[in-house]
Amino acid sequence: MYEKDFTAEKGIRKNKIVNELQANNVDAMLLTDSANLYYTSGRVFSGYTYINKDGKELFFVKKPVGLKGDDVVYIRKQEDIPDKLLSLGMAIPSSLALEFNTLAYSDVIRIQAIFPQAKHVNASSILRKVRSTKTSFEVSKIRESGLHHAAAYHKISKIYQPGMTDIELQIEIERQLRLEGSLGQFRVSGQSMEIFMGSVISGSNADAPTPYDFAMGGAGLHPSLPVGCNGSLIKPGETIMVDMGGDFTGYMTDMSRTFYVGKLPEIAYKAHQLSIDIVHSIATKAQTGVATRDLYDIALGMATDNEMLEYFMGYSQHAGFIGHGIGIEINEAPVLAPRSKDILEAGNVIAVEPKFVIPKVGAVGIENTYLVTDTGLECLTNFLEPMTELY
Amino acid sequence: MYEKDFTAEKGIRKNKIVNELQANNVDAMLLTDSANLYYTSGRVFSGYTYINKDGKELFFVKKPVGLKGDDVVYIRKQEDIPDKLLSLGMAIPSSLALEFNTLAYSDVIRIQAIFPQAKHVNASSILRKVRSTKTSFEVSKIRESGLHHAAAYHKISKIYQPGMTDIELQIEIERQLRLEGSLGQFRVSGQSMEIFMGSVISGSNADAPTPYDFAMGGAGLHPSLPVGCNGSLIKPGETIMVDMGGDFTGYMTDMSRTFYVGKLPEIAYKAHQLSIDIVHSIATKAQTGVATRDLYDIALGMATDNEMLEYFMGYSQHAGFIGHGIGIEINEAPVLAPRSKDILEAGNVIAVEPKFVIPKVGAVGIENTYLVTDTGLECLTNFLEPMTELY
Repeated sequence: MYEKDFTAEKGIRKNKIVNELQANNVDAMLLTDSANLYYTSGRVFSGYTYINKDGKELFFVKKPVGLKGDDVVYIRKQEDIPDKLLSLGMAIPSSLALEFNTLAYSDVIRIQAIFPQAKHVNASSILRKVRSTKTSFEVSKIRESGLHHAAAYHKISKIYQPGMTDIELQIEIERQLRLEGSLGQFRVSGQSMEIFMGSVISGSNADAPTPYDFAMGGAGLHPSLPVGCNGSLIKPGETIMVDMGGDFTGYMTDMSRTFYVGKLPEIAYKAHQLSIDIVHSIATKAQTGVATRDLYDIALGMATDNEMLEYFMGYSQHAGFIGHGIGIEINEAPVLAPRSKDILEAGNVIAVEPKFVIPKVGAVGIENTYLVTDTGLECLTNFLEPMTELY
Repeated sequence: MYEKDFTAEKGIRKNKIVNELQANNVDAMLLTDSANLYYTSGRVFSGYTYINKDGKELFFVKKPVGLKGDDVVYIRKQEDIPDKLLSLGMAIPSSLALEFNTLAYSDVIRIQAIFPQAKHVNASSILRKVRSTKTSFEVSKIRESGLHHAAAYHKISKIYQPGMTDIELQIEIERQLRLEGSLGQFRVSGQSMEIFMGSVISGSNADAPTPYDFAMGGAGLHPSLPVGCNGSLIKPGETIMVDMGGDFTGYMTDMSRTFYVGKLPEIAYKAHQLSIDIVHSIATKAQTGVATRDLYDIALGMATDNEMLEYFMGYSQHAGFIGHGIGIEINEAPVLAPRSKDILEAGNVIAVEPKFVIPKVGAVGIENTYLVTDTGLECLTNFLEPMTELY
């Protein structure tokens, strides 16, 4: 479709999906979520990716005009798909997987009416599983995002000027991310959260609870988007947590770093070091076959042992996880949470973010994005981990 | 919930919805789409707005902690809602409207299981209708966005430097929008499109077809987000169409203006003036009671009479509309399109954008956001309409 070197990669991804169709005994899958269209075709378009268990893949495209490829079939509307299948000598599926977790109810009903004989099953869980183990092509894209992400963070010390508000600092960081090649898009699966590029949170705003399951969220600038910076002046004795998304390649990295102004109370330095220690402990123990809930327990245990539990992953409102899978979207599998049943697999890419919120001081801690391998974790967001003073 | 002065406004909006529930003989409505939560409560939260046809409104909140109000009821999960209703002495609805057009299939199925006796109908069409006529509070918010939007566009001439690429110019415009108070969020209903803040499109890139129903879209910087600027150098003899969203208040304005470098072929100036003339003709004829397809026909007729049809709303790919409702989201009702059945009502807010794409030169034309009144249109995006030379 788009990238010239994508043909082999497209086949690898298709085969991963075909294996799941066969394992689940499902005839075919019809995908239309942007993230899944991009995953399967290498680009976003208006239309559907169709994959059957015999390994045939077609892209039913409404727009844009002009896409080339043996696998590209133009349609005017989704109702055209069965006739197109028949004219290509392909069977009408008797079971069809659809994205139940992201596709709107009315869209599912419309497709079910187009395939009235088919049993309809959930494609979302299949794609979530398939996409949770990245190919080497995908890892290279995430690695590239991580390099740009770090390059933009390197500018933060220079950007800061005393007397700035949190939003003024955030705007300049956004600009550096964009100049470094950020596409801006912060892809989230489903309707689980709304956020603009990420968060820069200073001082007490770190303890303002948000609608989402975030350790620190911030009150936001406006009730229509109640998350992130709130326009506060950055003051001495406060931390500034920078947690911006890094989408430079269609694949995201997640990285948080803590900055500060003036002198902080001792507990803030201690909690920040504890976050680093937790991340490194996890990085030492995590590898293929490890249960993600055990990684959560490492973090929880270290927070408890160091008498930091009340600040762990939030103060007024606590988040129920310390890490998450990441790739095309910010909220992929696996999840590092107490009741998670996920087991690490080689090729998982996870963001690990054991943070602490110290009342009146702010959020401290770090977040890194890691590749899971058979022998451990490889960090994809390499940037100075100690707190950096701004002045 | 959030804004102190919102109580009266909240009642007005609730009554509009209650009227529709009664007219459609539906017992109650359960909303969870961010745009609808914001519309009904004045803020975004994680949870549900419940409104019944007797005029009772409740906000079932999962997060954040700490929201106050007689109408706030905390829940852990949606399955708690029936018991909460009963404990408040309220009836379990025998018909319940849900957002079929935006809520994921699996979420609808989950709620249907919570209210197994209820007949489930579509809330999306009701909310689309209710939200299409703005209250005076909403109009004031859109008016305010329009002022900030124009203030940011005033900076464009000063920002431009010869030798810039389209993305370099766009990044500086984004920064001005943010400094002017833009929240960044570009709210689109459903999964119909992905775009980051808006588009700055120069030269031939205006004719690169996108996945969406846009007159000019642009190839984009990356196949994961194939829309908007593509990194081209801005060259003499080309236009630059600036079409950025303006969300400064939770309510958006849409405004496009055309800039140019060097000297353009005569046809570009002529087409730009035709766009202005079409917008002004529509602004003269549009008022309460006018069919939006008649406004489309005015534009089509003027494009035809001036022999500009081949460039109208795109060249390689033509968009099928010349305007759209706007408010919390960019794609509200009514739609100005050939087969639309919408009739203008007082309080509609519409963006009118009859654009032309001239091959090798770029896109020309303007877009304004207007309030529909009983006697005509009021422009909410007041900024110089002729093309502006950049140098």
